[in-house]
Amino acid sequence: MKATIERATLLRCLSHVQSVVERRNTIPILSNVLIEAEGDGLRVMATDLDLQVVEHIDAASVESEGAVTVSAHLLFDIARKLQEGSQVSLETAENRMEVKAGRSRFKLPTLPRDDFPVIVEGDLPTSFALPAKTLAELIDRTRFAISTEETRYYLNGIFLHVSDEDEPVLKAAATDGHRLARFTLPRPDGAEGMPDVIVPRKAVAELRKLLDEKMDGDVQIDLSASKIRFRLGGEGGAVLTSKLIDGTFPDYSRVIPTGNDKLLKIDPKSFFAGVDRVATIATEKTRAVKMGLDKDRVTLTVTSPDNGTASEELAAEYSADGFEIGFNATYLKDILSQIDSDQVEIHLADAGAPTLIRKNEDSPALYVLMPMRV
Amino acid sequence: MKATIERATLLRCLSHVQSVVERRNTIPILSNVLIEAEGDGLRVMATDLDLQVVEHIDAASVESEGAVTVSAHLLFDIARKLQEGSQVSLETAENRMEVKAGRSRFKLPTLPRDDFPVIVEGDLPTSFALPAKTLAELIDRTRFAISTEETRYYLNGIFLHVSDEDEPVLKAAATDGHRLARFTLPRPDGAEGMPDVIVPRKAVAELRKLLDEKMDGDVQIDLSASKIRFRLGGEGGAVLTSKLIDGTFPDYSRVIPTGNDKLLKIDPKSFFAGVDRVATIATEKTRAVKMGLDKDRVTLTVTSPDNGTASEELAAEYSADGFEIGFNATYLKDILSQIDSDQVEIHLADAGAPTLIRKNEDSPALYVLMPMRV
Repeated sequence: MKATIERATLLRCLSHVQSVVERRNTIPILSNVLIEAEGDGLRVMATDLDLQVVEHIDAASVESEGAVTVSAHLLFDIARKLQEGSQVSLETAENRMEVKAGRSRFKLPTLPRDDFPVIVEGDLPTSFALPAKTLAELIDRTRFAISTEETRYYLNGIFLHVSDEDEPVLKAAATDGHRLARFTLPRPDGAEGMPDVIVPRKAVAELRKLLDEKMDGDVQIDLSASKIRFRLGGEGGAVLTSKLIDGTFPDYSRVIPTGNDKLLKIDPKSFFAGVDRVATIATEKTRAVKMGLDKDRVTLTVTSPDNGTASEELAAEYSADGFEIGFNATYLKDILSQIDSDQVEIHLADAGAPTLIRKNEDSPALYVLMPMRV
Repeated sequence: MKATIERATLLRCLSHVQSVVERRNTIPILSNVLIEAEGDGLRVMATDLDLQVVEHIDAASVESEGAVTVSAHLLFDIARKLQEGSQVSLETAENRMEVKAGRSRFKLPTLPRDDFPVIVEGDLPTSFALPAKTLAELIDRTRFAISTEETRYYLNGIFLHVSDEDEPVLKAAATDGHRLARFTLPRPDGAEGMPDVIVPRKAVAELRKLLDEKMDGDVQIDLSASKIRFRLGGEGGAVLTSKLIDGTFPDYSRVIPTGNDKLLKIDPKSFFAGVDRVATIATEKTRAVKMGLDKDRVTLTVTSPDNGTASEELAAEYSADGFEIGFNATYLKDILSQIDSDQVEIHLADAGAPTLIRKNEDSPALYVLMPMRV
């Protein structure tokens, strides 16, 4: 294999794939990227056995075709440090890959390309497309609620499923048992009859990074009950393939309250800032912020045995009966930071009941937050 | 005590003092700052028993005088989160300090001001002044070489001493046994006969932060054999007092080579970049970069059993006999990053001898680097 490529192009490509590669690997080849030179371009692939990313580079000049695997982080670090604007030559010889740019020369150990594991996608019968922007928003609005508890592995991702309500929809949901985030959009053509799937947290994170650079156009999604593939940027773009979480997502619709009759309307930014301020004195043990609701007024209070008390009053729209309710300050802030509007609707029932939060009735995103005893 | 102060002023002052306060303290009052309201201003003090910083705020309106101690990090975090431009009221009542700004209100636990430990300075017979800029440069050029080995506590700071050479000088030195940095300046008036002192790393770091904001004017330095005090920004400024390290700094002048007859002149920036690039493949175990010297050329090489080899050629001025020498890449980069010039002089003897590095003969800063076997 021998190919030449601009440093900036190589760097951008490696920055996409290298984060798939774990820093520590018991299987040596999982530390490597597979580089294939073919025709007019390069194909660069990284995997952790559950998730693989393939990126195509058109702008390479291939002198001789071939394939090799080298350490992903090492090659990324080298590309980072090479001089801006330099042309990078990649050439294999005697179990080594030589990297040359300017007056720098590296000889890196390689492992055989045939040992590089590739995820067998199998049949992916469901196929649909989503605008990249919509997919990015779907992820942004839900991923913060993904559980990190490994014992509840079936909550460690975003749940995607279709359903028929007034009209057919595709829903994305994530929850950790304390809060729930759901994003709903019209069912895309081709998604009908798709199996319920749970996309793992790491695939979500890597996909989101790829979307950052390819916000235009559509993402092609193909899936079966066990695998999902995202194709971004068409030919010469990136392909992310992930195994799905083999588990059953709980029937979350049961926790979405429908009868909450106390409505608070408030500016999410000043609400966020107020919660953030009073939560300064919260500690590991006392993360609860108490909301006291009165006619057109919210009083936030935090009491800590170690750090004293904090309180703040906020103007709001509220006309139901006054009462008090407590929330985890961090969870409340997580949700409020999702609301890109001057007003958020908070639908309350009582101090022990799940609370519904959304921008408004038409918003595709909806959040449920469990209260804390205060 | 009751006083009102602009949030920005309070925040700036607390940001200076709070970093003296350790995150974990077995003695509760060491987590606190002492706030004294007197006359037209506030005095804010933090200590870790070895180092104290006092900052004066003139721009406060004091309604009733008094003093109190409250958690430094808590008050800093609160000040950080209060609304920009707000006026902050501080008022003591019943073992609490009330902080009010806008519609926010905090009641913080306090500890008695009389329990707050103050460093007894004693007599500080040596007094001299240095321009803040010079003091900042002295620190910048030497601190990177301070040892972090706690067993060699006498190397955990910057050594200051006066000496008479062609003319009287003040010298600052730091070393960790692998590299040495020395900064020399004409002896300031008042420094004659001063005792040799070692200023601890933390005092150096805090002083450097204070200097960042007060680069104009002079710093007044008063010291004895056991304490040192730095006064910045005159009246209404900051005062840092530190205990000195009670130990003997080694006679470092013996390791500064005088007969190194092989002179390499090279651009420090491209040299740094080259070392940084080839060191990409260095590992914890192999941090050495090999320099091969030939007529007007340096070849940098790193060989790693795990990561392969890297090499780079650099143009330089060199006319002595060719040979090879190895250095710790990080240490070499630390020194090169101190050279603000297009050329650095590297005075070599042989592969086993200490190497002298400096901008040029007139430079106040001088570095010695021990080679590594490669």
